[in-house]
Amino acid sequence: MRHQWDQRKLLCIGLDSDIRRLPASCAPDKDADQRLMHFNEDIVEATYEFAAAYKLNTAFYEAIGSLGIKALAYTVELIQRRAPGIPVIVDAKRGDIGSTNERYAIALYEELHADAITVNPCSGGETLAPFLSRHEKGVFILSRTSNPGAGEFQDLMIEGRPLYLHVAASVADRWNEGGNCGIVAGATFGSELRQLRTLVGNLPILVPGIGSQGGDLLEVLSAGYVHEHVNLIVNASRSIIFASPGSDYRTAARSAAESIHDQIYSWISKVEPGYKQS
Amino acid sequence: MRHQWDQRKLLCIGLDSDIRRLPASCAPDKDADQRLMHFNEDIVEATYEFAAAYKLNTAFYEAIGSLGIKALAYTVELIQRRAPGIPVIVDAKRGDIGSTNERYAIALYEELHADAITVNPCSGGETLAPFLSRHEKGVFILSRTSNPGAGEFQDLMIEGRPLYLHVAASVADRWNEGGNCGIVAGATFGSELRQLRTLVGNLPILVPGIGSQGGDLLEVLSAGYVHEHVNLIVNASRSIIFASPGSDYRTAARSAAESIHDQIYSWISKVEPGYKQS
Repeated sequence: MRHQWDQRKLLCIGLDSDIRRLPASCAPDKDADQRLMHFNEDIVEATYEFAAAYKLNTAFYEAIGSLGIKALAYTVELIQRRAPGIPVIVDAKRGDIGSTNERYAIALYEELHADAITVNPCSGGETLAPFLSRHEKGVFILSRTSNPGAGEFQDLMIEGRPLYLHVAASVADRWNEGGNCGIVAGATFGSELRQLRTLVGNLPILVPGIGSQGGDLLEVLSAGYVHEHVNLIVNASRSIIFASPGSDYRTAARSAAESIHDQIYSWISKVEPGYKQS
Repeated sequence: MRHQWDQRKLLCIGLDSDIRRLPASCAPDKDADQRLMHFNEDIVEATYEFAAAYKLNTAFYEAIGSLGIKALAYTVELIQRRAPGIPVIVDAKRGDIGSTNERYAIALYEELHADAITVNPCSGGETLAPFLSRHEKGVFILSRTSNPGAGEFQDLMIEGRPLYLHVAASVADRWNEGGNCGIVAGATFGSELRQLRTLVGNLPILVPGIGSQGGDLLEVLSAGYVHEHVNLIVNASRSIIFASPGSDYRTAARSAAESIHDQIYSWISKVEPGYKQS
């Protein structure tokens, strides 16, 4: 990830490849898993120049059963082959007791070869040991999600601060001994992101919710970007991969990714005038 | 489930079929997924007489990749065929934003044909709509987990009561409009279970952690059982399915299940003397 950040690349492309939304022209005669693989291959080919990372949400693959997991594994391998050095985040949001999380760690890091994953911290830091102990792999811990009802529990006030800040503080103060942690913080909540950035310092923050979910890119950059240290990943999924339902979906995805990439670079050029794209 | 409860069957058998722990004599020449299917078939055959439900934790299947998902789907189908009427709970602990949870609902209820699932409520009740709205399917919501560090966040006090009670109250008061909700409450915490039972009334409670995790069966029954209404499911996994590492694993599993079943029935006979096994 550091290499991407050094180039001021922050854009994560979310391959939420919902089978119902694939363009009709994408491998129309093939089975669902083949169509998913074909689509992902096209999107990766069209966008990797602008990608700091790719994120694959497991739900969209599990929805077509075991063949979906095959397509998921294929896509991870494809990205690592076609665009080596661009990390693949498997957005699984797993969380169970420790002995079960050990099996999830095997599933995600070893079977799927994810470079990083997202996890749910609800059952406490003790359960996360199987993820945190793999120092060469990344762990993004859910702190504040991007959905309208996220605050129901995440915003509950405990000893003067909301639950999501307690989680973020645990990540920054205790769970990051291996230097492999980050947090997930929804883009639809600018002021929360600012608070989180203050709290976690230079820890990586993955921000989903740019684009279709309504998060404002410039607000996110202003709240979450740290000059020089960078350490911010902004994710856009549907607004890129489904930029066009037509046969021009590849070029539309490329344009959408390029446009976000350009907005990011243009913003950084203003606030960090010393930085020049090489 | 009502039919099992009417017979005072409460024992859920957890098919946490960890590939590393399968008896050496179980289909030794077969591939991992075939061995899992073979093992599960043997265990179901040996135990269904005593089972109120079966629970399959997705982690143990995902750990062997897409073929594991095939074995998981096969096992659900096998239970529904061999022991019709015994519900299958897919213990997935999924939780994401609403549009993503809709895909998980498809994956778990439609692709895998789960009768019920477990979900994580961290992102708020709004995100659970895709699960709650399927009234013919069960949804067990994580309230208090059974691991040693569960209290780190779940016990945080908010307005005079711990977070896990806030979650349970949301389930009982607001999320159960379809009558398809239950909660998950760890067996290793007797007093918490008693509080939860008081709070949720007759709502089903799924209690993992009997056996290997150290939960005490009689304590759980005393804290969670509601006379006449029943509505309690106690889960044992490893202590049953891995009762013997030898070639007698089938009879050992049967004995372990029968023993827990008998303990439950004997306890019920004492506290509910009017009830007679038919």
